[in-house]
Formats: sequence, C-alpha cells, structure tokens
Amino acid sequence: MPHTTVFHESPVFPRGFRCASRNVGLKPSAKDVTLFVSDVDAAAAAVFTRNHFPGAPIILGRETMRGGVLRAIIANSKVSNVATGSIGVEHARRMANAAAAELGTESDRVLVSSTGVIGVPLPIKMIEAGIPGIAAELQHDPIVGAEGIMTTDSHPKAISLSVENATITVVAKGSGMIEPNMATMLAYIFTDAAFDAATLDAMLRDAVADSFNMLSVDSDTSTSDTCVIMANGRAGAVTQSAFREALRAACVRMAKILARDGEGAQHLLCVQVRGALNTAEARVVAKSIVNSPLVKTMVHGADPNVGRLLMAVGKCFDCTVRPESTDAWINGFPVVRSGQRLPFDDGTVREALSHDLVELEVDLGVGDGEATAYGCDLTREYIDENAAYYSS
Amino acid sequence: MPHTTVFHESPVFPRGFRCASRNVGLKPSAKDVTLFVSDVDAAAAAVFTRNHFPGAPIILGRETMRGGVLRAIIANSKVSNVATGSIGVEHARRMANAAAAELGTESDRVLVSSTGVIGVPLPIKMIEAGIPGIAAELQHDPIVGAEGIMTTDSHPKAISLSVENATITVVAKGSGMIEPNMATMLAYIFTDAAFDAATLDAMLRDAVADSFNMLSVDSDTSTSDTCVIMANGRAGAVTQSAFREALRAACVRMAKILARDGEGAQHLLCVQVRGALNTAEARVVAKSIVNSPLVKTMVHGADPNVGRLLMAVGKCFDCTVRPESTDAWINGFPVVRSGQRLPFDDGTVREALSHDLVELEVDLGVGDGEATAYGCDLTREYIDENAAYYSS
Repeated sequence: MPHTTVFHESPVFPRGFRCASRNVGLKPSAKDVTLFVSDVDAAAAAVFTRNHFPGAPIILGRETMRGGVLRAIIANSKVSNVATGSIGVEHARRMANAAAAELGTESDRVLVSSTGVIGVPLPIKMIEAGIPGIAAELQHDPIVGAEGIMTTDSHPKAISLSVENATITVVAKGSGMIEPNMATMLAYIFTDAAFDAATLDAMLRDAVADSFNMLSVDSDTSTSDTCVIMANGRAGAVTQSAFREALRAACVRMAKILARDGEGAQHLLCVQVRGALNTAEARVVAKSIVNSPLVKTMVHGADPNVGRLLMAVGKCFDCTVRPESTDAWINGFPVVRSGQRLPFDDGTVREALSHDLVELEVDLGVGDGEATAYGCDLTREYIDENAAYYSS
Repeated sequence: MPHTTVFHESPVFPRGFRCASRNVGLKPSAKDVTLFVSDVDAAAAAVFTRNHFPGAPIILGRETMRGGVLRAIIANSKVSNVATGSIGVEHARRMANAAAAELGTESDRVLVSSTGVIGVPLPIKMIEAGIPGIAAELQHDPIVGAEGIMTTDSHPKAISLSVENATITVVAKGSGMIEPNMATMLAYIFTDAAFDAATLDAMLRDAVADSFNMLSVDSDTSTSDTCVIMANGRAGAVTQSAFREALRAACVRMAKILARDGEGAQHLLCVQVRGALNTAEARVVAKSIVNSPLVKTMVHGADPNVGRLLMAVGKCFDCTVRPESTDAWINGFPVVRSGQRLPFDDGTVREALSHDLVELEVDLGVGDGEATAYGCDLTREYIDENAAYYSS
C-alpha cells in the first residue's frame, strides 16, 4: 500500500454519488430495496459470477454492462431471482425500468442486483410499487445503502479512501456462499476519478484477482456474485498507477471485512503462501488451506493440530510441493520446518491461535510465487444459520 | 450388483486369514495395535494417498508393495507417524521388523499402517514391546481387527460376502479427513480367491474409483489413506468378472458405511449424477454437491432450500452444464426441472430430507456420463469434534 492511501475513519461517497434504502415489503420491516445513483452518467465495468446458473440480474447485467455506462444500481435483498427462468429475466428488466423511470434515465444505464433465497419468484409488483418517490430520499451516507443490501451480514459494510483529488468508496454485502473464483456476492465501488470503461475494467479485474477472488467463507459459489465500479469523473484525472493501487487496497480491505463477518465467524483467517512455483500455484495452495474444514475448525478451537496445515498443502495434487522445503508459521510463530512439525510449546501456539486475526504463513521453498487468501473459522453458528436459512 | 453377490449377516474372514488387537499403551485402555495375518503368503496390491505429505508408513508401504506379496498388516491407531521426517520412516521399518519377527516372515511382507494425530513422534518402543506374543491371540473374527484401528469412528467396520467359492472381507476405519481422489483412510480387503498381484491391482483400482474415491466426509485429504487387498488363493480360482463385480460391490458398501459414520453425521448422503458429458464430469459434479457445506447443512436441517443444489452444480466451471436441461430430485421427489425450482410443497421435501438416507439425483441432460458420490451432512458435532481433536 503506497503512503498516499489513507482510509477514512467513516465512509463517505465520492462527489456526485448518493443512495437511498427502503422497506417495500420483501422483509417484515428491514430495508430491502436500495438505489445507488450518480448525478451524471458514469463510466462503468463489472465482473459477475462464473456459476453456470447465474441469477436473472446477472443475465441482464451482462447485457447492461456492454454499454460501459451506468447512472444507477437498483438492488433488493431477501429474494435472489435465481433459477426463475425467463420470467425472472423479465422481472429484472421491470426492476431496471422502474428505477430508470424514477430517475429519468434509460433502463440500460441501471444495473440490477438481487440477493437472497434461490428459486423463489421475485415479488416484482411489490418492488415496482416501492420505487416511486425513492429519489427524493437520496442521501450522502453510503452506510444507508449498505444497510439495504444486507442478508445474513451482521453489520453494514462500507469503506472509503482518498487517492489524490478523488475518492473511492466500496459498499458490499456477503457472508455465506462466498467462494474462490468469484467476486463477493455484491460489491459496489464508486469513484469520482475520471477513467474510461476499458481502463476501469482492467483495473477492476486486477484488484478483484487479489481480493474478492481470494476470499472464501465456505467454498460455495453464489449464483449472484457481482462486483461493479462506477466512475463519474467529477474529480478529474488521477494518476493511473496511484488509482490502481488504491483500488486494490480498498478491495483487499473489504475482502477482509467480508471474511471477518463470514457466517458464524469468530476469527479472521489470512493465509499467506510464498515460495510457490508461481502465482497461480500460490493461489491454489492458499485457497486449499483457507477452505479446509479441518484447518478452520483447528483455528476455531485454538487447537495446535498443525499437521492439518501440511495436509491442506499436500492435497494440492497438481502443485509443486516438496516436504523437505516446506516451512510454516502461525501468527509469526514457527510450527513446521522442512516438512516436519517443530517441537513447540502447545500453550504458545494455542495462544497464537486465539487471536481475533489468525495469520497462517507457508513458505513452499520452490519458487517466487506469492498469494494471500482471506477466510474465517468454521463454527456451530455456521451450521445453525445454514441448516434453516430458507425456513427462517 | 449381480444376483450372486450376497453380503453375510455377520462378517467372516476368508480361509486362512486371522487378526488380533491389543492395547500397548498408545491409548489409555482401548485397542491400539492390530495385526492381520494370512497363514500363507498372499498376492497383494494397494493404493495410497496422493497427498504431497504422505505419512512414513505410506513411504515405506510403496516400497513394500513393489514385491506384490504380503503375509501381514500391522497397524496402530492414535499416532499417524506423519510429518515426522526420516526418523518416522525408521520407526515404520522397526514396526514391520517387529511384526515380521513375531510371525517368522520377512519385513518386506508386512505392510505398516498408522492413523491418528499428525506430527507427533511414533512411540515405537511401546509398539515394539507390545507386539511379542500377539500371534498367539489371532482370531477368526474380523471385528476384532476393526476395533483396533478405530480413531473417531463410532463403531468397528467390517463386511464380507461370498463370490463363487471364495470370500471377500473388507475391514476399514475412517470418519474425518476423508476426501475425493483418495482411498479412504484405512481399508483392508482380504480374500481367499486366487489372483496374481497385477490382476488384483487392476481390479482394486477399478473398485476404488467407484467407491472410496467417490467418498467425501469433509473434502480434506488424509496423509495416511491406504487401501490394500491380499489374496491368499486358498479358495482356488474364481471367475474374474464375478470377482471384479463383488469387489466393487463390497467397496461401495464400505464407502457408504464410512460416509454414514462421518464425523458428526446424522444422514447418509448419496448423490447420483447422470446425463453428464462423460464419467469424469459426472464425478466432478457429484463431488461438488456432496462436498458443498450449504448442501450438507440443508440436508442437516431438512431445509428445502433446493437452489443450493443448482449452485453446487453451477460452480463446476469446467463442466458442461446447461440450465435448461438440468433436472433434480430429492429421494425421488422432483424439485428442479429445466433449471428452475418446481413449485413443490415445502412439507413434502422437508419430509424427504429427514430420512436417514438422503438421495440427491441430478440429470444434466447433456450426455451419458454417470457417477455416484457418498457423503454426509454437516453438523455441530463435526465442529465440536474437530475443534479439539488434538487436545482431546
């Protein structure tokens, strides 16, 4: 992170961005529809889920993003509009139309997002009835928008930072069904810096590769994952290298926030792999460790069963792994050298594992590849929450 | 399963096989050392873990199996002798030597297995002191041997069946750290049929591909997985096709027994995928479903959140999946047609999900590939057991 990157104490929007959230009846009383708006058209880029069963908003969103221009994002929580067939896509279009009409813009400048239960018809009439008048409620506080997109999140998630004269703001949600090879469920990035859509797209993909794509709460890949950036240019030009670095830092920070709030999570787990044959293999190994149920339960129980670290490295069958050159640390404390468990004091490792942040480092000693993955421990609360998600 | 395959009510050994189990002090009082013996040299074949950090017994075992002949298997539970360096391999050799001396055979005819905690030195002196005299205790009941290799298993696991004039007996253990691409932790197969080592090897690999390699309790791959077959020929020749089918049926049945006894499991989960592009893709999709924490918790909670099934199919990025041709059933009840959730009655699906055996069927509708995977639900008990495995 360069010295110029400083996160704000409280998140703010870049110039010309506002949001509003309402309850339209999808949830009993919590906010369930959210609108993010730029005062002027913004250059935009997005990455979506790679799941073979993309939600209707993703199918429509891929079409919408072809223009590279957005004025607004309209999102609902509670129902994801996934596995709903052609009627689902029609519902997503009607949602874009309703927001466009409210703002006096075109439907193809409104990105639609839905998050929640899969396979349930979207209550589109409720949403259409709830949108008129929402533009009058637009506010400058990104937390308002973050609140409206929450599902199992325990708190609203928004951060911002300055880069030269511009601001970058990330508003996101997600705590389960979050997996490698994906953006997180929903991450909206707003900036007043001026960049064209193609440049934004390249910078977004780079940032996502090191952040949301290295995030895994439970190895399950949502059908709704969306990460979008809107740049309205109100702050003028920003040095591209500085912006790229700030965007990456913002995405990494948000990935950590999402991991720490993973369903049932009690620990943030950061897995740093170095000395891999290359970056791709470093990513595979880091994700294998961060996804291992036995590593996650080891962290949860602060149980110094460090052999599980080696197990998780060793099951990356297609990566170059040499036991004799493999070292590992837990929160800086050496636990494995040359593929062998060190005769450490159990109490010391138990203490290291009991911190809120648990950093696992592995040096494979076979090359220069590095990667960091973000996750959390596996707890009874994850089970309880997911054994009755649909029913609750 | 052909009509000639009939499992015995209670497991018995084939002619010429016996076993004994003892407590030698690794555990407080339970049996921790087990010996399986054939009266005469047996042709043998084995498959071992693909984990990059194989335990010392695996390193030695690969050497031992080169001869294709075994008289005995000596196994200990509690300590797995993994990540223990060259001294670990020396300890495994000493264990083979001790058993060979007790039986009056050569060390290279004794396969060594260890299962338990990773990274702890094997208490080899205790084992060496405990082996002399064990041959006098050899019995004809395979359950005795199954008891001696248990770790977190809730019951000893042994089955047998007849094929023509011969018997096949499978003794196994394993309930956690069990994953695709592996044999189960320890599975010992004994038969009095006459086959050479090369034929056994080919038949074993076929059987394992459809059984233990389709078994996943928690997606974690043990460093100790071993599946070995010994054929002492005492029953003479058996039709190869009949034997191959009986061996496969025995391995599938044992895989189900292991899955049903997965750590914390309350349901056996069988995932049948058909209509895949080919067998390889059918296996990938079946394993993706059986490993999905959100599918496993759905089954655990009998929560009819069937969209998760599509999610788990859809995250197989490299497989051919067409939403419009995808159908799914839960215990025979249709829940998804053409990629869309059917408007089923929640209560009916909840009831289907509450059975001890939950069968999930998916027809991808793109080819002729078929595969079945075996697993279990994910419960609080899995968390509790694994958050303090080392410490307990």
